[in-house]
Amino acid sequence: MSKPTSRAMGHSHTLQTHLVSPQDTNHLNTIFGGNILAYIDEAAAICAMRHSSEIVVTASVDSVDFHASVQKGEIVNVEAWVASTGRSSMLIYVHVSVENPLTQEVKTTTTSFVTMVAIDQSGKSTPVPSVYPETQTERDIVMLAEERTSR
Amino acid sequence: MSKPTSRAMGHSHTLQTHLVSPQDTNHLNTIFGGNILAYIDEAAAICAMRHSSEIVVTASVDSVDFHASVQKGEIVNVEAWVASTGRSSMLIYVHVSVENPLTQEVKTTTTSFVTMVAIDQSGKSTPVPSVYPETQTERDIVMLAEERTSR
Amino acid sequence: MSKPTSRAMGHSHTLQTHLVSPQDTNHLNTIFGGNILAYIDEAAAICAMRHSSEIVVTASVDSVDFHASVQKGEIVNVEAWVASTGRSSMLIYVHVSVENPLTQEVKTTTTSFVTMVAIDQSGKSTPVPSVYPETQTERDIVMLAEERTSR
Amino acid sequence: MSKPTSRAMGHSHTLQTHLVSPQDTNHLNTIFGGNILAYIDEAAAICAMRHSSEIVVTASVDSVDFHASVQKGEIVNVEAWVASTGRSSMLIYVHVSVENPLTQEVKTTTTSFVTMVAIDQSGKSTPVPSVYPETQTERDIVMLAEERTSR
Amino acid sequence: MSKPTSRAMGHSHTLQTHLVSPQDTNHLNTIFGGNILAYIDEAAAICAMRHSSEIVVTASVDSVDFHASVQKGEIVNVEAWVASTGRSSMLIYVHVSVENPLTQEVKTTTTSFVTMVAIDQSGKSTPVPSVYPETQTERDIVMLAEERTSR
Amino acid sequence: MSKPTSRAMGHSHTLQTHLVSPQDTNHLNTIFGGNILAYIDEAAAICAMRHSSEIVVTASVDSVDFHASVQKGEIVNVEAWVASTGRSSMLIYVHVSVENPLTQEVKTTTTSFVTMVAIDQSGKSTPVPSVYPETQTERDIVMLAEERTSR
Ligand SMILES: CC(C)(COP(=O)(O)OP(=O)(O)OC[C@H]1O[C@@H](n2cnc3c(N)ncnc32)[C@H](O)[C@@H]1OP(=O)(O)O)[C@@H](O)C(=O)NCCC(=O)NCCS
Ligand SMILES: CC(C)(COP(=O)(O)OP(=O)(O)OC[C@H]1O[C@@H](n2cnc3c(N)ncnc32)[C@H](O)[C@@H]1OP(=O)(O)O)[C@@H](O)C(=O)NCCC(=O)NCCS
Ligand SMILES: CC(C)(COP(=O)(O)OP(=O)(O)OC[C@H]1O[C@@H](n2cnc3c(N)ncnc32)[C@H](O)[C@@H]1OP(=O)(O)O)[C@@H](O)C(=O)NCCC(=O)NCCS
Ligand SMILES: CC(C)(COP(=O)(O)OP(=O)(O)OC[C@H]1O[C@@H](n2cnc3c(N)ncnc32)[C@H](O)[C@@H]1OP(=O)(O)O)[C@@H](O)C(=O)NCCC(=O)NCCS
Repeated sequence: MSKPTSRAMGHSHTLQTHLVSPQDTNHLNTIFGGNILAYIDEAAAICAMRHSSEIVVTASVDSVDFHASVQKGEIVNVEAWVASTGRSSMLIYVHVSVENPLTQEVKTTTTSFVTMVAIDQSGKSTPVPSVYPETQTERDIVMLAEERTSR
Repeated sequence: MSKPTSRAMGHSHTLQTHLVSPQDTNHLNTIFGGNILAYIDEAAAICAMRHSSEIVVTASVDSVDFHASVQKGEIVNVEAWVASTGRSSMLIYVHVSVENPLTQEVKTTTTSFVTMVAIDQSGKSTPVPSVYPETQTERDIVMLAEERTSR
Repeated sequence: MSKPTSRAMGHSHTLQTHLVSPQDTNHLNTIFGGNILAYIDEAAAICAMRHSSEIVVTASVDSVDFHASVQKGEIVNVEAWVASTGRSSMLIYVHVSVENPLTQEVKTTTTSFVTMVAIDQSGKSTPVPSVYPETQTERDIVMLAEERTSR
Repeated sequence: MSKPTSRAMGHSHTLQTHLVSPQDTNHLNTIFGGNILAYIDEAAAICAMRHSSEIVVTASVDSVDFHASVQKGEIVNVEAWVASTGRSSMLIYVHVSVENPLTQEVKTTTTSFVTMVAIDQSGKSTPVPSVYPETQTERDIVMLAEERTSR
Repeated sequence: MSKPTSRAMGHSHTLQTHLVSPQDTNHLNTIFGGNILAYIDEAAAICAMRHSSEIVVTASVDSVDFHASVQKGEIVNVEAWVASTGRSSMLIYVHVSVENPLTQEVKTTTTSFVTMVAIDQSGKSTPVPSVYPETQTERDIVMLAEERTSR
Repeated sequence: MSKPTSRAMGHSHTLQTHLVSPQDTNHLNTIFGGNILAYIDEAAAICAMRHSSEIVVTASVDSVDFHASVQKGEIVNVEAWVASTGRSSMLIYVHVSVENPLTQEVKTTTTSFVTMVAIDQSGKSTPVPSVYPETQTERDIVMLAEERTSR
């Protein structure tokens, strides 16, 4: 299979849904920050693998602010998009929200950018397709990524 | 918050994406069937909680056939919809596919129906809203549920 | 070691005992259905490996009804027998009960049939010995399997 | 339910069967000693709960020698019996063997004695029934326990 | 116990040592970035609890760069210090290194700052002691924290 | 790299810090003894790998007494030192204490000796450097090891 030089953002859009169980929480019954960080990394990795058709490793994770705690029994939604690409790197935008199934209330927990690098079997970085947005949401994410880079 | 008497199928549609890691696999590097069963149960539970705004328990799982093995490094997609409802029970349709991120090939692994029951704090079953489809995919799922029931 | 053409049911009879710990339970302190399903799959796999002296994969799991909830601190007993065999497939009967160690009460949680297939190193299905019952309990299980097949 | 003053050893006999999966093993594909120790503790706890109908805690574990390594894909059998009792303590004999399902070979991995203490809701030690053997295997275990105590 | 108004940095210095096992790694046998992030969060939480004698939650994690991959069988060392304090917040400096036990080579994997907030039983932020360095290493960490803040 | 014939005890001194989370505890919210045993084995393995620069396996664990229970939210400190060496075996002294971060109280939970054996790629035992103490604490540990051996 020859790899395309460019792929739509929608092609690799990734959605994960986690039910917070007792084993993820501390004695206040709120989730450990480390669990959210691990979810962010996993969603970003799946998204980057889908975009690049390659094995990927995490090169960096942008700073993460936790605005609201997450309780046992709530649902964590993690969404990831490829926001921009370099030669072998992909900047992944990750949005985390928490949903209370009983009240149906949804709150943004955090957002972050993760840089994933595509690597070949020998562990060397390898080229990835470029990415293009097709919807307004996707164009907004591209803009967020441009703002971040120009900081 | 007063609960609606009816909700759209799209309201509770649930999507989970899992990266198969070494700890999920046997010595042939294929996933244990039990892991897929646990994914099906979790997705069905989240879907039923979203539809009913209640705590739910699993009452039964229909027979599950595994059509294709799932390898380490592949991505498992689990989708769940409320296909029909009783007084307190919800019949959840779950579709599981496996995706090879390197070849982009996607195969259906299995589909199943799970019956979830909404319960109140004392553990008694409690009424749930009815459900209505809005898209063709959703209407097809309602039909599958009717065929199953009339068997 | 040359493989026998036939083996007694007692040869592969498998018993697992699990203590339900907090990490297995939801916020009502009852076990997730998915955990029971994973126990059923593991016990069936061990039983099928013992009967066939081969690596096995799960081909299908019959529908599972959960008759009683299982609480944190209770003990789950999972028993598995080879009920019948095909060329490379084995029909495994699994019985799950829950035991409250404080009251010594024991209840059947569920029973199910699981089909396991023996495979060789290349992933191809491979023949298995036939099975014969020796006790009344074992003959009852063979009968259950025949009823299921003739449905 | 009034508690008996004495119970047969067979009443609390406990058997666990574990399939060694990749996550239990080191880079030589042999199981970590810590996993076997955790299995011993869990089987002893279940056995002691069954005998006493009480919650139990581990007071001590006798020295454990690992005579043979356990590989990924093998089956670990853990058996536990109440060998003797004090006022609130129970001496549990635990036997661990490993079984290769492909060759059907079974080897003793280790044996150990674990002391479990029954405790009430406030965490205080509480009386347990005495124990009596009924079979030759059980009488042998009682003898082993007597030898250990007289050392 | 009345809480001190100030504590030495050494009082809460925290060191964790992890052996990377197969279940922490992807199919290239290198650890998932998410595992390192979860280790960072856990070490920072222990350090902050020790400094404040309070329950803590993660408010934010600074950006993390992964400079070198970590292999199965290697040892990850995570060290954490309270670098500075606010009213209820503590800035924790975390240093992660990887050690190959066979070659004895040690490499820095990453460093990060984590903000932990002390909270009382009702979930409200609560005051923490200030912190003072006593050694040169500790004074260097305070300086790093000041540079970060003045950025 | 040629291996030294002797190494200082401080070279391989190992410290682990664990936050006890709900998933490690029983329904009295105290940690399972099996978890402590697994921590002891992991710390001893890391310590022995650091001393020998080899892969190691657990040959035996001395008897372990649990003097005090460990609660959810407490911190477990595990420290390990090479106390003496044979040709291929290393006697590791492990000290486990529990720390309540809210009261700052620290109690010894247990101590034990673990024998680790260095093995080469073919699974055969292989020589290890001898060990020498440099501090008073280290000399005390050597003495404890000599007392144990002369018992
Ligand atoms: C990420 C890694 C492969 C980069 O290696 P390298 O030798 O710098 O490779 P290259 O010079 O070919 O750079 C590859 C790409 O990575 C990018 N990159 C490297 N380090 C980065 C960082 N810290 N943050 C963001 N991007 C980074 C480069 O800019 C380059 O991007 P481009 O190809 O789009 O222009 C390497 O640092 C690594 O293996 N890190 C560990 C990854 C890992 O295992 N993470 C999990 C936990 S440790
Ligand atoms: C075990 C424990 C309850 C004993 O407490 P205690 O104050 O000594 O209680 P008691 O004096 O009433 O003794 C209770 C029984 O325990 C026995 N016991 C106490 N320590 C023991 C030890 N280290 N080894 C074997 N038996 C022991 C006593 O002999 C007594 O037996 P008996 O009633 O049959 O005569 C207590 O030490 C404890 O809670 N330990 C921690 C247990 C735990 O949580 N383990 C998991 C990992 S930390
Ligand atoms: C952190 C948290 C308690 C702050 O709540 P708040 O209402 O802003 O509380 P306060 O206004 O009293 O601020 C408390 C301290 O937190 C600091 N803080 C708040 N948000 C912060 C952030 N994103 N990054 C760094 N510090 C932050 C404040 O500066 C203040 O510091 P100070 O007391 O030293 O001056 C709250 O945002 C929260 O609960 N977040 C979720 C935490 C969590 O559960 N994390 C795990 C994964 S979701
Ligand atoms: C430990 C093991 C490698 C020893 O094998 P062996 O054939 O006896 O090897 P050797 O005769 O070369 O002995 C090697 C060393 O182990 C020591 N040893 C062996 N069994 C021991 C035991 N039960 N307790 C303490 N030391 C022991 C020997 O005294 C010798 O020490 P030395 O070299 O310092 O003089 C072997 O028994 C084994 O693989 N056991 C399983 C280990 C394991 O996988 N544990 C995890 C859980 S099962």
